[in-house]
Amino acid sequence: MTELRHVKPAGTAIFKDRYTTKVKELLTPWEDGKTAAFAIAGAPFSKSSISHSGASFAPSAIRSALQSYTTFSGGTGIDFGDTIIDFGDVNMDPTDVIGNQQRLYEGLSDIYATEAAPFWMVLGGDHAISHSSIKAFSEKNPSVGVIQFDAHHDLRNVEDGGPTNGTPFRRLIEDGILDGENLIQLGIRDFTNAAAYADYAKEKGVVVYTMQDLARELIEKVLERELAKLSDRVDVIYLSVDMDVLDQAFAPGCPAIGPGGMDSNTLLTAVHYAAQHEKVKAMDIVEIDPTIDIRNMTSRVAANVMLQFMLGKRI
Amino acid sequence: MTELRHVKPAGTAIFKDRYTTKVKELLTPWEDGKTAAFAIAGAPFSKSSISHSGASFAPSAIRSALQSYTTFSGGTGIDFGDTIIDFGDVNMDPTDVIGNQQRLYEGLSDIYATEAAPFWMVLGGDHAISHSSIKAFSEKNPSVGVIQFDAHHDLRNVEDGGPTNGTPFRRLIEDGILDGENLIQLGIRDFTNAAAYADYAKEKGVVVYTMQDLARELIEKVLERELAKLSDRVDVIYLSVDMDVLDQAFAPGCPAIGPGGMDSNTLLTAVHYAAQHEKVKAMDIVEIDPTIDIRNMTSRVAANVMLQFMLGKRI
Amino acid sequence: MTELRHVKPAGTAIFKDRYTTKVKELLTPWEDGKTAAFAIAGAPFSKSSISHSGASFAPSAIRSALQSYTTFSGGTGIDFGDTIIDFGDVNMDPTDVIGNQQRLYEGLSDIYATEAAPFWMVLGGDHAISHSSIKAFSEKNPSVGVIQFDAHHDLRNVEDGGPTNGTPFRRLIEDGILDGENLIQLGIRDFTNAAAYADYAKEKGVVVYTMQDLARELIEKVLERELAKLSDRVDVIYLSVDMDVLDQAFAPGCPAIGPGGMDSNTLLTAVHYAAQHEKVKAMDIVEIDPTIDIRNMTSRVAANVMLQFMLGKRI
Amino acid sequence: MTELRHVKPAGTAIFKDRYTTKVKELLTPWEDGKTAAFAIAGAPFSKSSISHSGASFAPSAIRSALQSYTTFSGGTGIDFGDTIIDFGDVNMDPTDVIGNQQRLYEGLSDIYATEAAPFWMVLGGDHAISHSSIKAFSEKNPSVGVIQFDAHHDLRNVEDGGPTNGTPFRRLIEDGILDGENLIQLGIRDFTNAAAYADYAKEKGVVVYTMQDLARELIEKVLERELAKLSDRVDVIYLSVDMDVLDQAFAPGCPAIGPGGMDSNTLLTAVHYAAQHEKVKAMDIVEIDPTIDIRNMTSRVAANVMLQFMLGKRI
Amino acid sequence: MTELRHVKPAGTAIFKDRYTTKVKELLTPWEDGKTAAFAIAGAPFSKSSISHSGASFAPSAIRSALQSYTTFSGGTGIDFGDTIIDFGDVNMDPTDVIGNQQRLYEGLSDIYATEAAPFWMVLGGDHAISHSSIKAFSEKNPSVGVIQFDAHHDLRNVEDGGPTNGTPFRRLIEDGILDGENLIQLGIRDFTNAAAYADYAKEKGVVVYTMQDLARELIEKVLERELAKLSDRVDVIYLSVDMDVLDQAFAPGCPAIGPGGMDSNTLLTAVHYAAQHEKVKAMDIVEIDPTIDIRNMTSRVAANVMLQFMLGKRI
Amino acid sequence: MTELRHVKPAGTAIFKDRYTTKVKELLTPWEDGKTAAFAIAGAPFSKSSISHSGASFAPSAIRSALQSYTTFSGGTGIDFGDTIIDFGDVNMDPTDVIGNQQRLYEGLSDIYATEAAPFWMVLGGDHAISHSSIKAFSEKNPSVGVIQFDAHHDLRNVEDGGPTNGTPFRRLIEDGILDGENLIQLGIRDFTNAAAYADYAKEKGVVVYTMQDLARELIEKVLERELAKLSDRVDVIYLSVDMDVLDQAFAPGCPAIGPGGMDSNTLLTAVHYAAQHEKVKAMDIVEIDPTIDIRNMTSRVAANVMLQFMLGKRI
Ligand SMILES: [Ca+2]
Ligand SMILES: [Ca+2]
Ligand SMILES: [Ca+2]
Ligand SMILES: [Ca+2]
Ligand SMILES: [Ca+2]
Ligand SMILES: [Ca+2]
Ligand SMILES: [Ca+2]
Ligand SMILES: [Ca+2]
Ligand SMILES: [Ca+2]
Ligand SMILES: [Ca+2]
Ligand SMILES: [Ca+2]
Ligand SMILES: [Ca+2]
Repeated sequence: MTELRHVKPAGTAIFKDRYTTKVKELLTPWEDGKTAAFAIAGAPFSKSSISHSGASFAPSAIRSALQSYTTFSGGTGIDFGDTIIDFGDVNMDPTDVIGNQQRLYEGLSDIYATEAAPFWMVLGGDHAISHSSIKAFSEKNPSVGVIQFDAHHDLRNVEDGGPTNGTPFRRLIEDGILDGENLIQLGIRDFTNAAAYADYAKEKGVVVYTMQDLARELIEKVLERELAKLSDRVDVIYLSVDMDVLDQAFAPGCPAIGPGGMDSNTLLTAVHYAAQHEKVKAMDIVEIDPTIDIRNMTSRVAANVMLQFMLGKRI
Repeated sequence: MTELRHVKPAGTAIFKDRYTTKVKELLTPWEDGKTAAFAIAGAPFSKSSISHSGASFAPSAIRSALQSYTTFSGGTGIDFGDTIIDFGDVNMDPTDVIGNQQRLYEGLSDIYATEAAPFWMVLGGDHAISHSSIKAFSEKNPSVGVIQFDAHHDLRNVEDGGPTNGTPFRRLIEDGILDGENLIQLGIRDFTNAAAYADYAKEKGVVVYTMQDLARELIEKVLERELAKLSDRVDVIYLSVDMDVLDQAFAPGCPAIGPGGMDSNTLLTAVHYAAQHEKVKAMDIVEIDPTIDIRNMTSRVAANVMLQFMLGKRI
Repeated sequence: MTELRHVKPAGTAIFKDRYTTKVKELLTPWEDGKTAAFAIAGAPFSKSSISHSGASFAPSAIRSALQSYTTFSGGTGIDFGDTIIDFGDVNMDPTDVIGNQQRLYEGLSDIYATEAAPFWMVLGGDHAISHSSIKAFSEKNPSVGVIQFDAHHDLRNVEDGGPTNGTPFRRLIEDGILDGENLIQLGIRDFTNAAAYADYAKEKGVVVYTMQDLARELIEKVLERELAKLSDRVDVIYLSVDMDVLDQAFAPGCPAIGPGGMDSNTLLTAVHYAAQHEKVKAMDIVEIDPTIDIRNMTSRVAANVMLQFMLGKRI
Repeated sequence: MTELRHVKPAGTAIFKDRYTTKVKELLTPWEDGKTAAFAIAGAPFSKSSISHSGASFAPSAIRSALQSYTTFSGGTGIDFGDTIIDFGDVNMDPTDVIGNQQRLYEGLSDIYATEAAPFWMVLGGDHAISHSSIKAFSEKNPSVGVIQFDAHHDLRNVEDGGPTNGTPFRRLIEDGILDGENLIQLGIRDFTNAAAYADYAKEKGVVVYTMQDLARELIEKVLERELAKLSDRVDVIYLSVDMDVLDQAFAPGCPAIGPGGMDSNTLLTAVHYAAQHEKVKAMDIVEIDPTIDIRNMTSRVAANVMLQFMLGKRI
Repeated sequence: MTELRHVKPAGTAIFKDRYTTKVKELLTPWEDGKTAAFAIAGAPFSKSSISHSGASFAPSAIRSALQSYTTFSGGTGIDFGDTIIDFGDVNMDPTDVIGNQQRLYEGLSDIYATEAAPFWMVLGGDHAISHSSIKAFSEKNPSVGVIQFDAHHDLRNVEDGGPTNGTPFRRLIEDGILDGENLIQLGIRDFTNAAAYADYAKEKGVVVYTMQDLARELIEKVLERELAKLSDRVDVIYLSVDMDVLDQAFAPGCPAIGPGGMDSNTLLTAVHYAAQHEKVKAMDIVEIDPTIDIRNMTSRVAANVMLQFMLGKRI
Repeated sequence: MTELRHVKPAGTAIFKDRYTTKVKELLTPWEDGKTAAFAIAGAPFSKSSISHSGASFAPSAIRSALQSYTTFSGGTGIDFGDTIIDFGDVNMDPTDVIGNQQRLYEGLSDIYATEAAPFWMVLGGDHAISHSSIKAFSEKNPSVGVIQFDAHHDLRNVEDGGPTNGTPFRRLIEDGILDGENLIQLGIRDFTNAAAYADYAKEKGVVVYTMQDLARELIEKVLERELAKLSDRVDVIYLSVDMDVLDQAFAPGCPAIGPGGMDSNTLLTAVHYAAQHEKVKAMDIVEIDPTIDIRNMTSRVAANVMLQFMLGKRI
């Protein structure tokens, strides 16, 4: 091919240092038979949100944020050399909000069925996508437990408003996909939930840690105890990270921001810790609206959450 | 009345879950004889500010932020069923800045005189409104102590610039409404005050805790000690919360932002703790400029401060 | 009732000049039997949009913008004394995007059935609401013509994406509610439509004026000719104003902005002119997303469009 | 003095081309006895505004915008070599809004009394400053006419709200400083004024051109006629340029923005034309709030208005 | 290949209507031997700018803006079916600002040498890139004329500041690549240039049209005359479009914004008209800084300028 | 001189309280022979940045932020009465990026040579300026140690991209100006550096504290130990504060933001502590881009870092 001096493809990075690899460079489209340590898929869906949400833009924003990170962890000495398989995004219909949840289920079901990787990361979207994702994930892994980082229970009734982002865990329980007692909720905040749903959680045996609870104990201790209990009961564990578990100062780009939440170090530490458990196999990250974020900060935390998950698996 | 299918009044919430009540729904306009556990009033006044300030928009912004919170505290199990009486706002003149302070005094005086509630919350405005509010409050409660959360002493001389937002506590002291020793200042920061005013505070017996002091001791301990001392000397205690006591990362919408301040958890904890004291009867929240805030974050903290005050009273 | 000095209800205007009435003050909620010269209703619906849209916030934003306008037109000497009946908003479900279109149809059908006013203004929402609105309007007025101000034909096929904001006029034609030749499209722009839809327009007899056409002739002349022809064929005429007919410099808050559009003076003149025709009875205003607007500029134009409609009716 | 290689004073321009002079470089502080062709003074006052306004920041913003312009007009071949005397700003008190108007009057009175220049430009501030400025200006020039570019009459009653930015011309008339018939208002817009004030204008003989009037005739023609009539009656003419005469697309930084206004070319042309009249001696520019402007656009227009005034004087 | 239901590659459009092609879909990376009617290349270079500029981001922003446009012009009935060859971007060094201009020259020289297309569009970057591009272009086309749309002459001396974005046409003249009389400058504005450079233009025979000149004559007439004269003297004509020729209301994202410029319709018309001339072979678009733009408006105009160029070639 | 009532120079503070001195008021331009306790100089240079950076605006932004601080530290009782000598800024060429580093070296060399102060603060600029500054500083102080606060090693190879902001400490080591073991790096973060540079640091004996290390030990303890060791080996110590050592929540205005960083209190405490060491003589503050900052927050932290440095020297 004719060489064109200095020319590079449109859209590639403006600068390349020969010794530095950015995590985004690890992403490789899936092909039949390709396998890797990690795989990701995007669920660009947020018309299910109760409030106005552009979380459908988050898969792109998080992938972009991976360009801000190198593959090297100085603290552990680990350098990711691995390919990350990127399955792309599940395609959403502009008006069929309920059908989209079926599409997400089917798309993720096919993706998980490829067995392209032992560890999976799904990029939402709003929290409604976790119903589809966990439903798909549980087909091959029927005995599943979930650790949910969230300010909210997400156990709302479905009659009012249908399968919104306030309902995924209720629907998983009521659909028989997830036992209430196999759901651990971390970071539930005062004045962000109705009493009826706290009662529902209690009734179904959901394990709830409020922010007040987490103020009294290191998050690693909480996770150590709950992972031990959960892993006695389930075969695989799925982490569901709603970024609004963070205080608004650390995650300004969530639709439902507020004070009194977790700081980002605690969340990163928690994901790192949990990911070290062998039964933890998958994670989703939801509820980032890049259109209202500040300098993509919240997507940057999300990308770091992915790195902590990967690092946990490598240690 | 003819029923119109699906039609709702302009300005009402876009979605209603039957089990969820938002705190804003508790607000009810005052009528003669109506009483409740809590009452609020707005003081939309900020032309008294030394720097450019849109704090006059804060009463509306804080009320809006109450729409973000449910009535339920999972940590305590308390669900506010109560009505909150909303007296509306005191009406301000566009050019009569000094007269407005008299109007605030008169309006709040009439409001307090209704005895509509045992506990009061006043939404500023800049800190100048505290002079009017405490003056009005002290008419029925002449023996009053004040706990002020603030980066600044607010003890400036009145000759330079008149009754600005830098002067309310000096004026209260000099008007004989408040004894210096009954004023507790928490969160005073380096490089935000003049030596002359630190000296004035000392001379008048004002009890000052700098951020350095607060770094050495839990805020509950400080409050326990100071509330005990103060309640020996006064009949009622008034909290005055200048949101700029917070670090700029937690309260980006204050006119006078800076680093080295309190985090929002500490402030929320402190108000919750203080409100449990039986002599604490009233609170104002000041110095939020919604026009420069980020995603109404600072008003969200303010609304949560209100909830902690209410929660403290309910425990 | 006990008088409280200087106190006014929360949310009311900060200043009142005794001789000045703002248009927003004319809005009065509907009650059975109440009639007025004009009535408005909000259609806060935009989940039908192909692109991310917060047009559901526009009814509120436009109502707020009415607070920026007085009731007096110096150019004509007319001062609106009239009440405007405000029916409020049609209530939307968070997830039932297709059902919402039925809800809009039913709600507006009931509203029009009140016969509360001879002239109607509907505040969208995205352009999908025009299908519901015109369908409801045509029940009492089966012979209806439409003058559409728009950069786009909105004649997309419904198979790809369902009843989106790109389809309302196609669906009206295919549902037999509107004859193609009774649809006048003004302001169609190059490179914003597919050839297939220009062909469809031609095939159905839709009367299309591109921006190039409008550059060659005064808009009043175009309207004079088309209103004359249309009024021979229909009993009532409905204006549908998609604000993206304006150049991006004049309507920065539309989802689909671009250069080469109309300036706001031309649109205001056109609506003023058209509204003087006796068969013009209703208007909708759509495709404003206040969350991406600049200083509510686009909603300010929309509010002025309403005033021009009203002024046209008064001359 | 020891030479420090490459070092320049803080705050000076980042780049200097030897052949290019920026207008800001022409500004020189006043000293006793210094004279020049033009002099400017700042009136950083906007607490008199009915709505929230940061127009007090405009004198600085406009001076900064002068750094964007060179001294050379290619269209006329004129290159300003002149010094512009900068008197600095009149000092405002934070709380004495009414007293500030006296301060402005006294300060500008002293400034005009220096006779440092034949032509004056005053940088507001909100429109209230024009009362002080014209009052001061008329002391030496008792027979004064005013050409006001404005969307508003600014003839509000003073009882409601005191001497706000809605009242300067009423007060000038009522104080006997300005005859109503010597006030020419250009650009008055529909739905921005009350009927009562249009009536007052008529009653006092104010000459009013609405935007509709200006659409029918070139602005130079209007000015030619009105300058001819006015110059028969008065000795000096003062231009008062409220930037909100411009359409919101051209002056996004005015507090009272809206559509249907003048474009910036028309205003620049008008000031250029008017300034050529020998009786035009002074101009103020008001109602720019840099805190809400976009990229200082409105201050850039204001700086260009200054250049057109200067150019008019040089032709 | 295993089919994954509903899955699409990351980064592709969120919605596809089967009858609609977006211009961005026409872009195809170059390969040896591939030819098309049009080819583009990016010159992401702006460290040569005198003022702070992110114009290096414009090639990406303009490509993204092509996603907003369909391929169909209703006004002419033309539908672009053509592939547009996208050569990608020339790679820039972070610190070697002067060397980058050589890299741009070499890269574009190689690109033009492919003869992949008869018509070329280069996406800057700041205006310095035009020196490199025209130098490269003139190698195969030594007799070249340039029509420059610009508020500025760009004829600054090179001693002060080196080969900045203020110097490209001076350097082309002094390097003997371009005769002064073969340079037509349209849109030169008052107070944006130094007299010395207007003198230089005159001395070198540059043909200058100020905004005042363009106000007196239709731009098509100007172009007709100048294209006729220029085409007698040169073999090929290159358009250089500095977007700051537009008024700040129409191009808010240029580093050097100001009032008194062209509106976007006039620029689009001009490019459309000029492109119809057979000797016009290439165009560059420069001086858009997407980091300070509003909703990518200026890049949207730029993308439309590309479409007008293409349309002119197709008529 | 004629007194003009109420008039003050353009650009001075809007309000002055007689008892309050702002730190900015302490700044005084240098003159031959003038000495003070502290001196500052600006290095407005950021074209050396790998990513787009407006750090060249930071010297002005930080000086402005000094207007937000008083001279009084209530925590220590210290009130700065001192003049701070402001040398102004080193003048940068628009295109000669590599030559600018020589200019910075020469300018700072001359500045340090004045011996105007025992303690120096240099305001960047991006981190490339530290090479020039430390090189200049080491001429009089050849035995120099550096404590670098940074998320990054800044030890990149110079072949890829030249002397960028990723290379200063590598170049200092390779130029023989700084021994690797005399470089202490605090706050190095995971996934922000390449393994090759961590290896280089190790090989050269650089002392590296990651964020994980700092989580395990109070920063004062770390500094106590490292200052003790370093002061055994060197005569003077230079602090280099890259503001991106802070978490993005505390320093939103750095080009390379991310989670997992230091909070601002820790940094302020660290600088305060380190400055108390007698061998600490100079400090630079780099990597603030005011054009992307939020409410100048990051420059406010930087100004406070300066105050902590000064306070440390005064204790
Ligand atoms: Ca959730
Ligand atoms: Ca949540
Ligand atoms: Ca205060
Ligand atoms: Ca304060
Ligand atoms: Ca439409
Ligand atoms: Ca449209
Ligand atoms: Ca006015
Ligand atoms: Ca006005
Ligand atoms: Ca140029
Ligand atoms: Ca230019
Ligand atoms: Ca660094
Ligand atoms: Ca760094």
